[in-house]
Amino acid sequence: MTMVDISNKPETYREATATGTIKLKTETIRLIKEGKTEKGDPIRTAKIAGILAAKKSSSLIPLCHPLPLTNIEIEITTGNDSKIHVTSTVKTRAQTGVEMEALTATAVSLLTIWDMVKQYEKDAEGQYPFTAIENIHVLKKIKLSAEEKGSVERKHKNTQS
Amino acid sequence: MTMVDISNKPETYREATATGTIKLKTETIRLIKEGKTEKGDPIRTAKIAGILAAKKSSSLIPLCHPLPLTNIEIEITTGNDSKIHVTSTVKTRAQTGVEMEALTATAVSLLTIWDMVKQYEKDAEGQYPFTAIENIHVLKKIKLSAEEKGSVERKHKNTQS
Amino acid sequence: MTMVDISNKPETYREATATGTIKLKTETIRLIKEGKTEKGDPIRTAKIAGILAAKKSSSLIPLCHPLPLTNIEIEITTGNDSKIHVTSTVKTRAQTGVEMEALTATAVSLLTIWDMVKQYEKDAEGQYPFTAIENIHVLKKIKLSAEEKGSVERKHKNTQS
Amino acid sequence: MTMVDISNKPETYREATATGTIKLKTETIRLIKEGKTEKGDPIRTAKIAGILAAKKSSSLIPLCHPLPLTNIEIEITTGNDSKIHVTSTVKTRAQTGVEMEALTATAVSLLTIWDMVKQYEKDAEGQYPFTAIENIHVLKKIKLSAEEKGSVERKHKNTQS
Amino acid sequence: MTMVDISNKPETYREATATGTIKLKTETIRLIKEGKTEKGDPIRTAKIAGILAAKKSSSLIPLCHPLPLTNIEIEITTGNDSKIHVTSTVKTRAQTGVEMEALTATAVSLLTIWDMVKQYEKDAEGQYPFTAIENIHVLKKIKLSAEEKGSVERKHKNTQS
Amino acid sequence: MTMVDISNKPETYREATATGTIKLKTETIRLIKEGKTEKGDPIRTAKIAGILAAKKSSSLIPLCHPLPLTNIEIEITTGNDSKIHVTSTVKTRAQTGVEMEALTATAVSLLTIWDMVKQYEKDAEGQYPFTAIENIHVLKKIKLSAEEKGSVERKHKNTQS
Repeated sequence: MTMVDISNKPETYREATATGTIKLKTETIRLIKEGKTEKGDPIRTAKIAGILAAKKSSSLIPLCHPLPLTNIEIEITTGNDSKIHVTSTVKTRAQTGVEMEALTATAVSLLTIWDMVKQYEKDAEGQYPFTAIENIHVLKKIKLSAEEKGSVERKHKNTQS
Repeated sequence: MTMVDISNKPETYREATATGTIKLKTETIRLIKEGKTEKGDPIRTAKIAGILAAKKSSSLIPLCHPLPLTNIEIEITTGNDSKIHVTSTVKTRAQTGVEMEALTATAVSLLTIWDMVKQYEKDAEGQYPFTAIENIHVLKKIKLSAEEKGSVERKHKNTQS
Repeated sequence: MTMVDISNKPETYREATATGTIKLKTETIRLIKEGKTEKGDPIRTAKIAGILAAKKSSSLIPLCHPLPLTNIEIEITTGNDSKIHVTSTVKTRAQTGVEMEALTATAVSLLTIWDMVKQYEKDAEGQYPFTAIENIHVLKKIKLSAEEKGSVERKHKNTQS
Repeated sequence: MTMVDISNKPETYREATATGTIKLKTETIRLIKEGKTEKGDPIRTAKIAGILAAKKSSSLIPLCHPLPLTNIEIEITTGNDSKIHVTSTVKTRAQTGVEMEALTATAVSLLTIWDMVKQYEKDAEGQYPFTAIENIHVLKKIKLSAEEKGSVERKHKNTQS
Repeated sequence: MTMVDISNKPETYREATATGTIKLKTETIRLIKEGKTEKGDPIRTAKIAGILAAKKSSSLIPLCHPLPLTNIEIEITTGNDSKIHVTSTVKTRAQTGVEMEALTATAVSLLTIWDMVKQYEKDAEGQYPFTAIENIHVLKKIKLSAEEKGSVERKHKNTQS
Repeated sequence: MTMVDISNKPETYREATATGTIKLKTETIRLIKEGKTEKGDPIRTAKIAGILAAKKSSSLIPLCHPLPLTNIEIEITTGNDSKIHVTSTVKTRAQTGVEMEALTATAVSLLTIWDMVKQYEKDAEGQYPFTAIENIHVLKKIKLSAEEKGSVERKHKNTQS
């Protein structure tokens, strides 16, 4: 059991984007689009759950470092297929990357959508023959070098608040 | 925003099993099987993370009820394909079902496996072109009626400890 | 330091409702009503934060007992005055009451509304001369006796799911 | 749902002070002053609960950034009126302010006082006709510019431990 | 990895008492007894930390079941030797015992005492040559049979509140 | 109640190592060494629990500062006596030391070992006459000055990833 030792790494700007999908019944997608899901809006609830989950990554994943995240953004789109797509971007200025945070935000957003529409996805026996969370993966990771980071900081220095 | 009101439901025996898969490089699977992953054993770590996550479901998923779980069991198998399969079973005696707990355990176990083998999955640019978490779904839900529950309890009454 | 010992109390149906208010600028209330607050919908976000907070009461308030809550409901109304009113109702079948859970849900909902509209409430010096959370109190507590509880349970026995 | 992106803001010294009040029965205030409250000292317990809550702000308030707080100080005074006043000051060296942390510390301190004296505040029907948490607001926010921060740091450089 | 399956065990009354000791410098003990420790009262702070920790046992110890605790009581005594003794009693009505909760409460109380007096225990090099937490063990476990439990409940039935 | 104000301290490299022991029955030690403990491997489980606990120190110990830890390492050895020894090292680049984190990791690792072998340690009456956690103490604390830190950083600048 060996956590990666990041003690001597410099802080740099880090960003990661992860995405994933939940497959629902066509009827459930319709209810969501029409704002008729009884427990409330699955999309907004999932975004909030995902943002909160990103902040909990290091308490969920044993060897994940606790990091002071600077931004978490979650996009959720409902296509014409019977799928909802969640894409989470997490940013930090830290000594290690944030792909686990982006993946965790995505996974918990997807789990929350499931929970919000459970009643429409269950069959007569209370089973879920249709519902599935699919293809959670990392779209991209960004790491800016010390020089690029300095450049970004000079540019933004006067616009802080 | 409306949480399901379970106040007047009787406590019954509940069980749910959820499963999911992570696709890794063949080389990574080999390292896991040979016990050579540098950060430690991904399988055992994932099981522990999944069990702890099941207990956190109601703090991760906004409308999920807090329940006193009576058992959490996680099976992880490495097949001949380059995939690892996680199957989580959660049990309780409560007023509502535990499929969200089983799904959460599965999702966090899969995220933990990813974290444990990150270094082998990244390509030269630090991206993850191969890795993906796939097909998280509920295998089965069980709910025993009051009569069945009574029967189970009578049977076990003298074997308690 | 003495936690109340509820070991020998019977489980009964418990319900508590708490309410509170946040005073905002008239302009901020208008932005909320028109759905133009930049960080997202403060009302929906506050409801979710309040529900999650109710579940965390026993980890926030030292001598509060951990209880399996059966329902949490948060109503948020925006009147014609420049105030938003939050009312939280929490239910359980437990050995002690849930007024602290209802108060915690209300307080954290109100704090979340503040956070969502911070940028409109700050003056030129970054101070908050207008904003205030006011009058958090308990509207009512209900405790049903064993007989009343039995009656409620018989009535609902066949409508469970 | 859009968290404020603080990735490009420089770290500066931040401080925020928030205050709030709880109105109790005159008799309850007397019991507190005489150290006769059965569950223990409400003042000390509330301070500890408030300090712990400040550290949990980003897990309670969805769009609040996780920050490494450098100081949390809570003052609690009991005046001659039947009110207890809580004032919380939070400090950090971070990319965003800490008013939500100071407000959260204050709110949870006040909730804890309520919990510690519940038994004296309830009437014969178990209701709380007198008790109320009032006027939680921000007293001041401080943000030191990079130059001021440098000055502070040079001054303290030799007194560190 | 196999959590004990308590699904079919009946709920019974459970109680566990654990104890432990922290060895401090004589001078530190004197400061505590005279109420002169700069960070505040270590005894009261440790009791609160211990009570909160008991409620977190199942999130700290992987295979520990989440239980609705009915009482947590922590006694802390300062003897004539340079030791402080912590004794924690935890009660529940549940399907498994609470010795891990009593041990966790004791351990975290002792850690908190250490934290509160750190500055007096460090030597000139910032090391702790004297301080040690010693002999954490279980004093007793109680489990009442269904019959004994029924008897206790009948006795207390009219004194509930 | 006064948290130490670290606002004006510079960030420096910090490291702390703490150790502790659990005394078990000879038979239990044998089962552990032979990998025959029914609930799973106590050593690996304890390491994971300890690492997660280090990250929770500031939520367990009231006046402990939240810090972004850069490494947590836990060694567990089983000697020829009937004792298991846990040694935890925690590292950070922060404004205060991490001895409480190393002690917390050690304590929770030891508690987890206890939980994993409970069934073998109990006597016929369900009591624990043999088991004890002993001698938790700090082995060493390291704090590098600003100059030493700079030197370390220059040395590692090109080896980051």
